Amino acid sequence: MSLTSEALTQRYQLACEVAQAAADFALTFYQQRQQLVVERKAGNMQDLVSRADREVEDLIRSRLQTAFPDDGFLGEEGGGSQASARCLWVVDPIDGTSCFLNGLHTWCVAIAAVVDGEPSIGVICDPNHRELFHACKGKGAWLNDVPMQVHQGASLQEGMTGISNSPRIAPRRIAGFVQALLDQGGMFVRSGSGALTTAYVAAGRLIGFYEPHMNAWDALAGLVLVREAGGVSNDFLAGDGLSSGNALMLGNPAIYQQIKALADH
Amino acid sequence: MSLTSEALTQRYQLACEVAQAAADFALTFYQQRQQLVVERKAGNMQDLVSRADREVEDLIRSRLQTAFPDDGFLGEEGGGSQASARCLWVVDPIDGTSCFLNGLHTWCVAIAAVVDGEPSIGVICDPNHRELFHACKGKGAWLNDVPMQVHQGASLQEGMTGISNSPRIAPRRIAGFVQALLDQGGMFVRSGSGALTTAYVAAGRLIGFYEPHMNAWDALAGLVLVREAGGVSNDFLAGDGLSSGNALMLGNPAIYQQIKALADH
Repeated sequence: MSLTSEALTQRYQLACEVAQAAADFALTFYQQRQQLVVERKAGNMQDLVSRADREVEDLIRSRLQTAFPDDGFLGEEGGGSQASARCLWVVDPIDGTSCFLNGLHTWCVAIAAVVDGEPSIGVICDPNHRELFHACKGKGAWLNDVPMQVHQGASLQEGMTGISNSPRIAPRRIAGFVQALLDQGGMFVRSGSGALTTAYVAAGRLIGFYEPHMNAWDALAGLVLVREAGGVSNDFLAGDGLSSGNALMLGNPAIYQQIKALADH
Repeated sequence: MSLTSEALTQRYQLACEVAQAAADFALTFYQQRQQLVVERKAGNMQDLVSRADREVEDLIRSRLQTAFPDDGFLGEEGGGSQASARCLWVVDPIDGTSCFLNGLHTWCVAIAAVVDGEPSIGVICDPNHRELFHACKGKGAWLNDVPMQVHQGASLQEGMTGISNSPRIAPRRIAGFVQALLDQGGMFVRSGSGALTTAYVAAGRLIGFYEPHMNAWDALAGLVLVREAGGVSNDFLAGDGLSSGNALMLGNPAIYQQIKALADH
């Protein structure tokens, strides 16, 4: 028995509300950071970020579990519960914590839902720019109230490619991708928030995305957004992707193939 | 006979006013772009950006030359005039035009003044985040009305390094730098606006900066900002840097040396 369409829609609506509330809450911490900078209390900034991460995740978990107590939850900060539930929420309370810590305005809240094993809801909220990216399987992808479509370019030369990486990955993987992309006449950006970068692919601002290894809570919201905006991705949940992460590649069908070829380089 | 302190201060105040007015004007074009996206008029977007670049530069040039008719002017869009003047304005009306075109909120207006051969005024305005970064030789560096200081970290591992690049440069130069930086435990960001990235170094948000080749209108404002925020740079104007560009490396004294070593790698 799968979730009814109504049950999915209820969860989609709640995910949008909760992502917005969580992002607004995170922004209050971020604004405190700016005050700490003036006071030059560097040690306190790290504490503030850690506290923000935990408290924002608590807010999200509490609101989702109150509404849907039988759903599962997998968060970056708090580990998991009921991972075998029919609907599993996968949450990154603040994606781009280095940006958040250092005062770069590119960080976001990411909420995804995997329903019956299929990524089905993706919501990314960027409070600094008042942008809520949201999608539900079969309902299209939206930036606030405007429909989104992935970049229609046929070649990586026609746009900017978003990349992300982490210290988990050997430097040559990302440096090799950068070299191969530039050799083809492409260009890269790395904002420091992988999830927000994937939302920009859904919005057609970036032509594609590659990260050699991403965790599920960073990856799944953008995957749903891009698929619903007409793009494609690799099968992120293949193998133990949910628990151990995987590479993520995104773009329109032609661009996806070109990114995959460069990543396999 | 050099400019009096009063003459320099008058130019500094005007540069701040003009950068803010130009950035506000550019923002009105950017908001039109967002409307064009909804209407999916891709060809018109490129026209809009080209027009924005020209009209914003015209605004800046007109206001500076009206106030100081004997000063010289070097702009990205309009070429130069009176390059031998005692005070030469060096202007990028919109730095990060790919961002501007594609809807990434990281672009800025950059205005610098070279007085008697010395970079002396640097102003960078980011209208999307209401941030005006400004500095004048001997007067410190400021973000709006708060003094700025470069990142105090002793090692590249302690912060994020901003990088930038252009198709003018062989891919291996930047890919090699990325590899070497990651090998040392550092991390990079590339926003797509070199000038705004240099302002973030002055603000201590990024620990350092490297671009293998930058034009004077992208480089000089950030150079003044970083020096006045306690950082150091290479001698950008050495040789024919003003007319032909140069590499740019920025950081506190220890970080600058580390970036230089990686760039020479």
